[in-house]
Amino acid sequence: MSSTGLQPPRLERFRAGAQELGVAAALISSPRHVFYLTGYLPGERSPSFLLLRGPEMLLVAGESDRPRVAPGVEHDVEYYEDYSIRHVVDRRRAAARSLMDAAERLGLAREGRIGVEILDLPAFAEPALGSRERVDVTPLLRSMRAIKDPDEQDRIRRSVAVTAAGHAAARQAAVPGATELEVYAAIQAACVIEAAKPITFDGDFVSGERSWLIGGPPTRRVMRRGDLFICDLFPTVDGYWADTTRTFAVGASSPAQRELYEIVNRALEHGRKALRPGVRACDVYHEIRAVMAEAGRAQNFPHHGGHGIGLEPHESPMIIPGDDTELRVGMTVTLEPGIYVEGVGGVRLEDNYVITGDGAEAMADYPLGLEAKAG
Amino acid sequence: MSSTGLQPPRLERFRAGAQELGVAAALISSPRHVFYLTGYLPGERSPSFLLLRGPEMLLVAGESDRPRVAPGVEHDVEYYEDYSIRHVVDRRRAAARSLMDAAERLGLAREGRIGVEILDLPAFAEPALGSRERVDVTPLLRSMRAIKDPDEQDRIRRSVAVTAAGHAAARQAAVPGATELEVYAAIQAACVIEAAKPITFDGDFVSGERSWLIGGPPTRRVMRRGDLFICDLFPTVDGYWADTTRTFAVGASSPAQRELYEIVNRALEHGRKALRPGVRACDVYHEIRAVMAEAGRAQNFPHHGGHGIGLEPHESPMIIPGDDTELRVGMTVTLEPGIYVEGVGGVRLEDNYVITGDGAEAMADYPLGLEAKAG
Repeated sequence: MSSTGLQPPRLERFRAGAQELGVAAALISSPRHVFYLTGYLPGERSPSFLLLRGPEMLLVAGESDRPRVAPGVEHDVEYYEDYSIRHVVDRRRAAARSLMDAAERLGLAREGRIGVEILDLPAFAEPALGSRERVDVTPLLRSMRAIKDPDEQDRIRRSVAVTAAGHAAARQAAVPGATELEVYAAIQAACVIEAAKPITFDGDFVSGERSWLIGGPPTRRVMRRGDLFICDLFPTVDGYWADTTRTFAVGASSPAQRELYEIVNRALEHGRKALRPGVRACDVYHEIRAVMAEAGRAQNFPHHGGHGIGLEPHESPMIIPGDDTELRVGMTVTLEPGIYVEGVGGVRLEDNYVITGDGAEAMADYPLGLEAKAG
Repeated sequence: MSSTGLQPPRLERFRAGAQELGVAAALISSPRHVFYLTGYLPGERSPSFLLLRGPEMLLVAGESDRPRVAPGVEHDVEYYEDYSIRHVVDRRRAAARSLMDAAERLGLAREGRIGVEILDLPAFAEPALGSRERVDVTPLLRSMRAIKDPDEQDRIRRSVAVTAAGHAAARQAAVPGATELEVYAAIQAACVIEAAKPITFDGDFVSGERSWLIGGPPTRRVMRRGDLFICDLFPTVDGYWADTTRTFAVGASSPAQRELYEIVNRALEHGRKALRPGVRACDVYHEIRAVMAEAGRAQNFPHHGGHGIGLEPHESPMIIPGDDTELRVGMTVTLEPGIYVEGVGGVRLEDNYVITGDGAEAMADYPLGLEAKAG
């Protein structure tokens, strides 16, 4: 236990914010917020906790996560045994025990109110809180997360670069005769090579008549000349998500498809120009929708216009009619206008932006363009 | 709410077991056990719950999971809104509210003791339990899960088949000059094509001097002639894990490497012959270790001899000195002897077995053999 280890600036800001809420101590239990505040990204198998009290901090982590814990916080960590060949280990039980020990050492429940993540708290962690009053610090964390620090923007850019590699592979692989699964495999391979490690990966991979259903996983469907293929990639590298989309014409495109593409392209450009500090998220949505409406395609644009990206694939602000959050410098958002027309195809284009003092900056410059095998 | 929908046999068995524990109602909160009892595998974003009381059941699931819910239980589901463009949705808050409604409709906390998964219960679900006494049903679920039903064995076999496709790709791709990442990408592509959909995927991909460190993710390391490459694959398809390993010689193998291979091969065969009902897991470990010791390599075998596989990549029984669980018909286990020698390389071989009346049956027959490009 120490207050001399690495204290990332976000941790200091959180402490200040918590103090304003009258919170004397805090238990952080979601992996994403342990990561956000300490730089340690917990593995998926062993539960981790961050305990804070005044200037002191203590991490609880499984032994198998030791290589993941940043060297700077090494001496603030209480490790528990989460693997042994000598006896059968229940990781969650071991974590619960270790958490109780850590809470006692730190005096977590000694006095005052305790900050917790109400909706991310496992019931087994509650004994560590004693009978202290709980205060939900989730709104504080979300509000902090809305503005990305430079290191966070860099991580998102790294994930965006991975999607660019994926789109380049899709542009080559989406040819008549290929299955959606084969194209997906080529995309995934390119993303892994670019990231230089296995990554968590999700997305939409729909071609032909599947493209006007908006999204879905890849299937054995064989692509035909004249299909549109929507490639929506959301990978995460080092904890931060990107989310970009390109649409490719397989072999050739029809005038009707190119018309949809031009509308969506205009909507994306129009949306991008609307991004600036002080504008509300709902206003950006309406700007995008206005382009669709002008083209008589408002009814073919059924989904959001975009959303925040960061530690979660979808986070605040949501570019929807129902979110009046004001954009601020340092927010990172995706815009993703799309039109889906039965018998013609679906077109969606999506890029990621960081809000700047006078507008927004694209986080990568992978080309748009319907043509496959052109890149 | 209904008792007439699909009632999988595991649900009936669970009810009977819970009744013996004096449990009148139960709240199942882990995705794997919701899946185990209902056949509905929840998506990762929206929390799901299974509520049971007497002969009645009710599922709580996010709207976006609707396509995942088996048609047979469709009318036993209370869906909550987990996406909207009209307003910002907090999925966990919506789940908590929906759970409270469902608990009231079902009378979950009306009388008697309530079964819960103590270590898998979110704190936000606790109000649904009222002030009723809680009984941990995790041991009951684990005990049921130890013996795999035929449909579960089929799902594991499907995942094992995916690993076989991965090994076949590795055997082709692990050539001098290839990076571990390139080989990994080829493996992943083969697995996805075989599974015919995106799958969750983990494993060890270490070559050369990395191979005697047992495991780790793939890197940019370039494979050289004479390297050993350990390919340990654990994918999950439709909720059930497989876990198999092959070791490949890149270009050529040395006599010392072939000697390690022969010892590990013997240990695997010896372990397989030890598998039968009534034998203890620790005994199987000692049989494997005896082969290592006879060859003077006991100190180079630092890890478990295997473990159960199923809904989790590691589950009971653990093939370690510290687990005296008796094997029973229908258990599914992996055996994975390995030897790691600095300057020579690491060799690990692993296959998956189901315990039968008089022994064990391999769940796939992908060939062993050190030679790459031979398959």
